[in-house]
Amino acid sequence: MDEFELIRRFFSKDNNDASVVLGVGDDGAIISPSPGHNLVVSTDTLIENVHFPDCLPPEDIGYRCVAVNVSDIAAMGARARWITLALTLPDVDEKWLQKFSEGLYHAAQKYDVSLIGGDTTSAQQIALTISITGEVLPHQAITRSQASRDELIFVTGSLGDAAAGLDLLINSSGSSEAEKFLMQRFSRPTARSEIGQALCGVATAAIDISDGLYADTKKLLLSSELGGHLYVDRLPISMQLKQIYNQEQRLKFALSGGDDYELLFTAPAIKLDEILKISHIYNIPITEIGVVRNHSKLNCSLNDKLINYDDNGYLHFNG
Amino acid sequence: MDEFELIRRFFSKDNNDASVVLGVGDDGAIISPSPGHNLVVSTDTLIENVHFPDCLPPEDIGYRCVAVNVSDIAAMGARARWITLALTLPDVDEKWLQKFSEGLYHAAQKYDVSLIGGDTTSAQQIALTISITGEVLPHQAITRSQASRDELIFVTGSLGDAAAGLDLLINSSGSSEAEKFLMQRFSRPTARSEIGQALCGVATAAIDISDGLYADTKKLLLSSELGGHLYVDRLPISMQLKQIYNQEQRLKFALSGGDDYELLFTAPAIKLDEILKISHIYNIPITEIGVVRNHSKLNCSLNDKLINYDDNGYLHFNG
Repeated sequence: MDEFELIRRFFSKDNNDASVVLGVGDDGAIISPSPGHNLVVSTDTLIENVHFPDCLPPEDIGYRCVAVNVSDIAAMGARARWITLALTLPDVDEKWLQKFSEGLYHAAQKYDVSLIGGDTTSAQQIALTISITGEVLPHQAITRSQASRDELIFVTGSLGDAAAGLDLLINSSGSSEAEKFLMQRFSRPTARSEIGQALCGVATAAIDISDGLYADTKKLLLSSELGGHLYVDRLPISMQLKQIYNQEQRLKFALSGGDDYELLFTAPAIKLDEILKISHIYNIPITEIGVVRNHSKLNCSLNDKLINYDDNGYLHFNG
Repeated sequence: MDEFELIRRFFSKDNNDASVVLGVGDDGAIISPSPGHNLVVSTDTLIENVHFPDCLPPEDIGYRCVAVNVSDIAAMGARARWITLALTLPDVDEKWLQKFSEGLYHAAQKYDVSLIGGDTTSAQQIALTISITGEVLPHQAITRSQASRDELIFVTGSLGDAAAGLDLLINSSGSSEAEKFLMQRFSRPTARSEIGQALCGVATAAIDISDGLYADTKKLLLSSELGGHLYVDRLPISMQLKQIYNQEQRLKFALSGGDDYELLFTAPAIKLDEILKISHIYNIPITEIGVVRNHSKLNCSLNDKLINYDDNGYLHFNG
C-alpha cells in the first residue's frame, strides 16, 4: 500500500463540514474561516515510548492525539475547528491504521474538528504531529500572561488520574472499575473545550495541564511575571484515585503527574459566581486551589503547613 | 537546556508581522487573517536519512523544511503566511540548533512567512514537521483536479537539478561551480511562490514536483481523471546538469529524481501569452512540456519516438 492509498483508505472520511472547501488529497486543504474571527494555531507531537507507552491500543493513540491538541485550543478560550496529521510509522500495519483512524475520527467527531490534511512518512518510532487551528473573536482569547496579584487559581475536573492511569497501563492488568476509569483518563483525555470557550471574559489567564499541576501553574504565573500559592489539600482528587492510591501517591500524581489536560486558570474573586455557573452548566467540577501572589515563587501548603515542592514536571531535554 | 529555554533562544525571533497577534510561547498562537480570504493549510514531515542525508548542514535543513512547505502553498496559487514547527531531535546540540534556526529564519524571511509556534520532542531520528497556512481569495485556488483534455502541460525552472545535487552531496566533494549549483538546488529549493499566485485564473490545475516529474504529472492527471503525453526532449535542463551528467542520467534525474519543487501546471493554449508574460515578469523559464489527453495513461516521447517509462517516483511505503 503506497501513501496515497493509505490516505485514501484511512484518512479521507467525509466530514460534512461546510467550512472545508477542499479536504485531504491536494497540495493543501482549503478552508473558509468564520468572518471576523482570529485564528488560534497550535501543534503537538506524540512519540511512542515518550508520550505514550507502546502498549497503548492504536484507537487510543488516535483519540489521544486529537484530544491533547483540542485541549491547547480550549486553554486559549477558542473553538477548535480543523486538524492536520503528520503520521510517521515504522511500517504499514493495516489493522493498526484502521484502529488508529477510528480513534482519531471518534475524537474529531466528539470535539467537532475536521481532519483536512496530512503527511505520511516512515521512521523507526511511531510519531504523530497534529496541527490544529481554532477560531476566537478578537480580544477574547485567554493567554497565559494576564493574571494579576490576588486573583484566585482554579482547576477543572480532577487531578492525577491520568498519571495513575499511565502507571496502571504499564504495571497492572487494570481489571477493576476504578483502574479502568484511571487508565481511560490517560488514554482518552477530556479536552475542556466548552468550558474553555465559556471562560472568555471570565478567566484572566489559562493553561492546560500537560506537564503536571505544579509545573504548569509555575509556567502560567511566570508568563504573568508573578508567583502564587497552591493549597494542596484542596486539590480535586477522584474517588477512583483515592480508592487505589494512598495520600502521598495521590498528591504526587496530582502535583507532578501530567497528562491531565484539565484547565488551570486565574480569575478575580468577583467572578466566582460566574465560574460556579459554568461548572454547573457543563457539569464539571471547578475547584479553587490557590491564589496569585506578587512574588516569583510558587509555594504549596498542606493543611496550613508549607511544604517543599520543587519538581519542574516533565521537561523534555531537561538535565 | 529545557524545551522552554530552547524555544526562547532559537525560535522566538520577533517577526514584525502585524497579522501575528500572539506568537510563540503560549498554548497557541493567535493570528488575524486577511478579511474575505480562504485559508490553505498543508503539512510536511522531513526525516533524516529519508528526506535528506545526515550530511546536510543544519542551516540547509532549516531552510529546506520551510521552502518545501511554502512550495505546497504556491502550488495552490495561495500566499504562504504562517508556519509552526514540530521539531524532534535525539539530543540538544546548541550549535546545530543555532545553525538550523538561522536557515529556517532565512527562508521564512525570503518567503515572508512567520514562525508562530511549535513543539520540541526527543526521539532517535531527527524529524521536522512544518505546518503552513496560506491565504487565497475564494474560488481562486488552483487544485489538481480541474485539468481538461487538450490543455498544455507546463513546468517552471529546470528539472533534475535537485536529484543530481543529492547524488553529489552524498558521493562527491562538490568543488566545481556546477556541482555547487546542483547541490544548492537540493539543499535550498526554490518555492515558486510568486509564480504560483500569478497563475491563479491562468492555470487550470497545478502541483509542485516533489516525487519526480513523471510521478507528479501522473498524480495531477489522475486527480483530473485524465492522461497525457510528455515530450521528454523538451524538458528544461540546466547548463550545470548538462555539464556534469550524460543525457541518460539527466533524463533519469529530470523524470524521476524528485525534490525539484518546480510547479507543474496545465492551462489551455489560449493562455500561452499570459504564461510567457508571467515567465518574463518573474524571470523564471516556463516550458511547455506536454499535453493533456482524454485517456488514463501518461505517455512519453523522445524526438517523436514513444519511450517506455513507468517509474512511480518515490512512494513512501511502496512495495
